[in-house]
Amino acid sequence: MATYSTNKRVKKMADLNGFFNPRSVAIVGASKTPGKIGNAIIKNIVNSGFSGKIYPVNPKAEEIEGLPCYPNISAVQDPVDLAVVTIPADRVLDAARECAGQGVKHLVVITAGFKEVGKEGLDLEKKLVAICREHGINMLGPNCVGMMNTHARLNASFSGAYPKQGDIAFISQSGAMLVAILDWSIKTGLGFSKVISLGNKAQLNEADFIEAVAQDPGTRVILCYIEDVADGEHFLQVAARATREKPVIILKSGTSQAGAMAASSHTGALAGSDLAYETAFRQCGVIRAHSMPELFDLAIAFSAQPIPPNANVAVVTNAGGPGIVATDRVETSGLNMARFSKETIDILRKELPAESNIYNPVDVLGDAGADRYHLALDKVLADPSVGSAVVLVCPTAVTDPLPTARAIVDLHHRYPDKPVLAAYMGGPMLSAGAELLSAEGIPCFTFPEPAIEAISGMNRYAELSKNKFAAEEMEIQVDDETVRNVLSAVRQDGRLVLLGSESYQVAAAYGIPAAPVELATSPEEAVELAEKIGYPVVMKVASPKIMHKTDVGGVKINLADADAVRRGYIEINENIQRYLPDVVIHGIEVQKMMPKGVELIVGMSRDVQFGPLIAFGLGGIYVNLLKDVSFRLARGLTRREIETMLTETKAYTLLRGYRGEKPADIGTLVEIIARVARLVTDFNEITEMDINPVFAYPRGASALDIKITIS
Amino acid sequence: MATYSTNKRVKKMADLNGFFNPRSVAIVGASKTPGKIGNAIIKNIVNSGFSGKIYPVNPKAEEIEGLPCYPNISAVQDPVDLAVVTIPADRVLDAARECAGQGVKHLVVITAGFKEVGKEGLDLEKKLVAICREHGINMLGPNCVGMMNTHARLNASFSGAYPKQGDIAFISQSGAMLVAILDWSIKTGLGFSKVISLGNKAQLNEADFIEAVAQDPGTRVILCYIEDVADGEHFLQVAARATREKPVIILKSGTSQAGAMAASSHTGALAGSDLAYETAFRQCGVIRAHSMPELFDLAIAFSAQPIPPNANVAVVTNAGGPGIVATDRVETSGLNMARFSKETIDILRKELPAESNIYNPVDVLGDAGADRYHLALDKVLADPSVGSAVVLVCPTAVTDPLPTARAIVDLHHRYPDKPVLAAYMGGPMLSAGAELLSAEGIPCFTFPEPAIEAISGMNRYAELSKNKFAAEEMEIQVDDETVRNVLSAVRQDGRLVLLGSESYQVAAAYGIPAAPVELATSPEEAVELAEKIGYPVVMKVASPKIMHKTDVGGVKINLADADAVRRGYIEINENIQRYLPDVVIHGIEVQKMMPKGVELIVGMSRDVQFGPLIAFGLGGIYVNLLKDVSFRLARGLTRREIETMLTETKAYTLLRGYRGEKPADIGTLVEIIARVARLVTDFNEITEMDINPVFAYPRGASALDIKITIS
Repeated sequence: MATYSTNKRVKKMADLNGFFNPRSVAIVGASKTPGKIGNAIIKNIVNSGFSGKIYPVNPKAEEIEGLPCYPNISAVQDPVDLAVVTIPADRVLDAARECAGQGVKHLVVITAGFKEVGKEGLDLEKKLVAICREHGINMLGPNCVGMMNTHARLNASFSGAYPKQGDIAFISQSGAMLVAILDWSIKTGLGFSKVISLGNKAQLNEADFIEAVAQDPGTRVILCYIEDVADGEHFLQVAARATREKPVIILKSGTSQAGAMAASSHTGALAGSDLAYETAFRQCGVIRAHSMPELFDLAIAFSAQPIPPNANVAVVTNAGGPGIVATDRVETSGLNMARFSKETIDILRKELPAESNIYNPVDVLGDAGADRYHLALDKVLADPSVGSAVVLVCPTAVTDPLPTARAIVDLHHRYPDKPVLAAYMGGPMLSAGAELLSAEGIPCFTFPEPAIEAISGMNRYAELSKNKFAAEEMEIQVDDETVRNVLSAVRQDGRLVLLGSESYQVAAAYGIPAAPVELATSPEEAVELAEKIGYPVVMKVASPKIMHKTDVGGVKINLADADAVRRGYIEINENIQRYLPDVVIHGIEVQKMMPKGVELIVGMSRDVQFGPLIAFGLGGIYVNLLKDVSFRLARGLTRREIETMLTETKAYTLLRGYRGEKPADIGTLVEIIARVARLVTDFNEITEMDINPVFAYPRGASALDIKITIS
Repeated sequence: MATYSTNKRVKKMADLNGFFNPRSVAIVGASKTPGKIGNAIIKNIVNSGFSGKIYPVNPKAEEIEGLPCYPNISAVQDPVDLAVVTIPADRVLDAARECAGQGVKHLVVITAGFKEVGKEGLDLEKKLVAICREHGINMLGPNCVGMMNTHARLNASFSGAYPKQGDIAFISQSGAMLVAILDWSIKTGLGFSKVISLGNKAQLNEADFIEAVAQDPGTRVILCYIEDVADGEHFLQVAARATREKPVIILKSGTSQAGAMAASSHTGALAGSDLAYETAFRQCGVIRAHSMPELFDLAIAFSAQPIPPNANVAVVTNAGGPGIVATDRVETSGLNMARFSKETIDILRKELPAESNIYNPVDVLGDAGADRYHLALDKVLADPSVGSAVVLVCPTAVTDPLPTARAIVDLHHRYPDKPVLAAYMGGPMLSAGAELLSAEGIPCFTFPEPAIEAISGMNRYAELSKNKFAAEEMEIQVDDETVRNVLSAVRQDGRLVLLGSESYQVAAAYGIPAAPVELATSPEEAVELAEKIGYPVVMKVASPKIMHKTDVGGVKINLADADAVRRGYIEINENIQRYLPDVVIHGIEVQKMMPKGVELIVGMSRDVQFGPLIAFGLGGIYVNLLKDVSFRLARGLTRREIETMLTETKAYTLLRGYRGEKPADIGTLVEIIARVARLVTDFNEITEMDINPVFAYPRGASALDIKITIS
């Protein structure tokens, strides 16, 4: 008997304090020549205002950027916390060893020419990692742009753009995209805390940095662009913990077939299937952005505004059209239009002009000045049913964009627990107001939809967090010994696919309710087994080689007595000999004939990154046609997640009792899914598993056809 | 016998030449007082540089804006082509009559206080329309911002913003949104040809203006924001013709339940169901934008670039990450990543650095200058398989954003038939290049996704156009006389729901293959009918009151001889008397028992705006659960549309032969759908119709259970 536990640590947390806050930095490969990366880096470190010691290392220079230059890192007498390496690839290993000798604990390897150029580069990279491991060095890169910590005024990168200080940590697997975003942020005023270019992720990867910045008080939001994760299990653990601290928003590319191909040719990374990523992100509370604009809209919202207490949005507008557009988007984004309390409606009716719409969206009319906006926004934010507000402003002859912006800022401060976002719809007529809002931390968009989408993302975070906090792992008693024995017998028999009787034993050992199946090798044995199991029974030819058993007369159903079983055995045998004379059969399986229930499927496939993925949905022969299936990672699956998983399918409508049928036993189905998850987590050698159908009944359920494949 | 025709005109085309290009404009209610609408309008007309005559009308002024003022419109001696009315609502009718007396043919009524304020306003509005109709006046409004024709340098509106001249016509049901967009366009440089604020759409509506600008050589793209259409049939006809001339892009709001409520409280318009709009837009070739950003991204792309000859996109980038992001979006937007010809690949391999990715996306590497971009883009645009190109530029140390922009512009001119769009990802480092691109008509975005989405919209237009041009209406022979007789008999019987035998007659008269049903009122008659129809038969109690006939013992299947039929009749009768003693039954229906086929549904519901909407999909008792249904408007439905309709369902996978089954007879299904569409178009009194199931066979098909409800 074993107990279900997934929280074993797979990787120790890297101590990156000295990495982000070094007292001294050496630049191995610093250069005097403008245009060279080694020159850009030293200039960036000096110009960012770093207050620690800076040691340029270059045997060919005496001083660089006014600093004395060292011929090699060993020549630096004082301790070096961080070394940035930007010499050619063939000399990086020596430099790493030298750094190790000098006691350097943190390395940023900018140099390219490793894994991304092929086999030789990969070998070099492996050697580099080995050196770092041996000496307890944390290494970022190789093939990266570098890193920044704006709070330490440190720009240890060759990026041409350096952002303003802020509370967004940005971790990017694409260096070019990182520089692009930083340059763009200068235009938009977005502020960053830490910026990390992951490069080849040879040692430190996205999970290490998510873990580090999750504990960084200077970081409020974690933003990632990734093309893959380096280690699925480590990522899941780290991300699940990080999302309890602060929002983690990830744009994961390579989602399409062609995108994944482009991704692998780019970084040589093996992209996991997108479904597994989607599931993994949801299960550990990560907000997934689906485009670059969405990633940054979310970043802006999360960094400046509180998490909404509920999904109900109030919209205040000075024009009807944009109010309708906003309302549409609220409803398609998993949010609700708030229904105001009677008090709110009464006071709005009293205080606003008669022609105003006092229901949601509140239309304060085209002649509204700042006062009227202030009044309406104040009242709706005060309403306990309202979780967030969006203010829409169109230019009219009397629009007062700047005072209205001040009114919004004021109310943001009065209601600090409810997010307020704005859409200032226009150009020059509204720009002063829009700029004030952005400067004061009110995300301000040109159109209503991105504002609503941003609230939707924040609400998703709130919901995911709620789910996670409510989660408890399930205690399950199992008999893993029996399963081990069955699998080893199958292997000894030279097979990879279990017979029905073997699958039944496995299921039974893990407490999965299944219709008993036993293997008979003679008509008499079949009768004996049928008597034991109880009539009526089903008989099926036992051979993993035969796919469509019915078509070759290999199945008999509803056999009600010994005579029928005996005859059934003989007829099946004859049919197989006639249709498939060359196929060796293991015998004939006798299974309890079960009454028909709601036909479901519970299955499992394995993802290279995230391990077993459990599927649940409508079963039967149309599974692949109807595709009514929802997925979860088996690892750490909680009762709550399984319940949610069920509700995501159309099958759930059947289970609740469709067209007057009795509701099915949901509890038993949850139990089955949990036990399948446990089974495939305990036994890595189970590569595929399908139970189709599972019949669900008003009381209980029964697994009828179980297929298990092992490696 | 009748012939299928839907192209009857419902409304004559309005001659709006004098409206858009008046030789003279009168402003009834012109004012000297700054801040008043009457002042804003006269100033706008004067300041926009209008070269025609301008007549301010106001009894209290002698001159306004340096122009002599008239006490009333009758005092103007010269002919007036267009009058803009902005006096209080209670005096608008008089003004309209006066205008009519003066021979004015075009009216813009700015004044509010009509339909939007309730019953009284609606009455006033109706009278206003009556006056206009009587005198052949075209009237825009009331309750609108006005209109602009930048090519005639005419700003007959009170908008505070006036856009630059361009080739986008913008028609908006929201005045505030229109002003917002014009103000925003000043920032972005978007140019407009004609701008129309629809207001209450009392007379002229979106369809009239779409029709007008479709023929305007100064307009290349038609953009609409609407909350409803005024007249579904008119809209369909106009839009279908307009989209043959140029793209029509519509943002239709009020799509959600709450949005529609907001819409009706706003304009008092009855919003049609969103499904009907979605279907109508697609069937007449309208591109639907789903957000304001998308509406304008599409406008920019359509106005500056050609329609792509195919769906294959080439991506040229100087960084891997953005290339993957673009690739992902290509695949989720209904586009394909182009596969280059061998020639293209060979030349790219020869000319680009060895580390470049020469497949799609083409990665010209971070050190690419304008030359390398030019080379790569030239080669991919020359490839016949490529339909469009997206150029991604990230800032790097060597990025040359301005020369690269020039290279892109040059190639746009060399390949005028393939759209080229760009994403300049960054801020200050790239802004000069981005500005040049926008100025030269290359849509330039900050992120890759909007560029791809814009191409996707253009490609949708190309596909919709292709479908439309290939469309031919179907010639169908029907017997409408019989249907008329059946329906009138049902009505005389005081019923609204047809019996099975009546529905069968209707279906048969329209050539819909159905399993014969006849009504028996005695056991003997039942036997007689069964003998005629042929055994085996099904018997069902005939009563529209009984919903679940099986549950009350009202159905017997597979009756193979006279004796079984006789017994069946008596038993059904007894069952009904036992279970539902109070229900009066019409008799018992005898129907041919058909072999089981693929179970489908063909149905119809009526939309208030667009008329009958035909549904097709998986049939059976799980129709509402599986929701595997596609829709088309019955009006003008073509064979090609029906075929596409079938392919949109999962049922289609079954029809093509699933898991080794024989394919079903698609031709017969197309015929059934066409005939149902014809039936419900011919007979408006059929309010609902459901055939569930239709059994599809390898040869032929059969309608089994037909429910028809009339009004």
